Amino acid sequence: MPDILHRIGVRGADASQVYAALTTVDGLAGWWTDNTTGNPGPGGKVEFRFPPVGGFDMEVLDATPSAHVAWRVVDGPPEWIGTTIDWTLRQEGEWTIILFKHEGWREPVEFMHHCSTKWGSFLMSLKALVETGSGAPAPRDVQISDWH
Amino acid sequence: MPDILHRIGVRGADASQVYAALTTVDGLAGWWTDNTTGNPGPGGKVEFRFPPVGGFDMEVLDATPSAHVAWRVVDGPPEWIGTTIDWTLRQEGEWTIILFKHEGWREPVEFMHHCSTKWGSFLMSLKALVETGSGAPAPRDVQISDWH
Repeated sequence: MPDILHRIGVRGADASQVYAALTTVDGLAGWWTDNTTGNPGPGGKVEFRFPPVGGFDMEVLDATPSAHVAWRVVDGPPEWIGTTIDWTLRQEGEWTIILFKHEGWREPVEFMHHCSTKWGSFLMSLKALVETGSGAPAPRDVQISDWH
Repeated sequence: MPDILHRIGVRGADASQVYAALTTVDGLAGWWTDNTTGNPGPGGKVEFRFPPVGGFDMEVLDATPSAHVAWRVVDGPPEWIGTTIDWTLRQEGEWTIILFKHEGWREPVEFMHHCSTKWGSFLMSLKALVETGSGAPAPRDVQISDWH
């Protein structure tokens, strides 16, 4: 089963800052989408919307401070439902290293190719948010193609 | 076996321009690395270098104008040797859509996570080169982490 994998480093940051960007509404709204609601803390459920095209509902499977966050997709595009999104953080000197996995895709469809590139772009937005205070969440996200 | 997948769209471009950026030394040097030598045309062999860390030698397995390019890695980091890099191009109105696959990785090692994100970043460089005339090849590439 194919996975989307990424690795990125956030410079001059503590893992707790990256963890906050993954587990608070303000944090998530600062790099993924302005339209984030719900409870992204341990045991919570969070809704991400990208008007006008829809969005994703996630259950928080794990949230271990400064170390690990995992979500399960419970609503959204059919290809996403039941997949998991997994974030592992570790500190290496002045860098916080993020290992990202979006697992459980059933087929390597064209939409999966798109989501892989788009995740890479949003990870750069997360990096910018923590490093500079300003990310590029939807609707101000970087357009990568006709699929946005 | 895990693959790296990406999809990107180049706006206001003809597939022949993207094809040229994948099959000429000038094109490749404009988005991937300044230090590109060899023959990236059909049946050729091309050397990509990223001083001071090394690089990749590729054999061109296929080069079908405006439609498809495929390379096999014959020298470089052990994880890359024997893998293939596959580019499918198609025209959709004002967009050239690129489907990218880097296949044949034996294990989803941390380096593969890094290469996935880095490929996404270099695809944005390719898009910028064709759209604006200016990409961000090494050594002026976007730094994504401590691994560059």
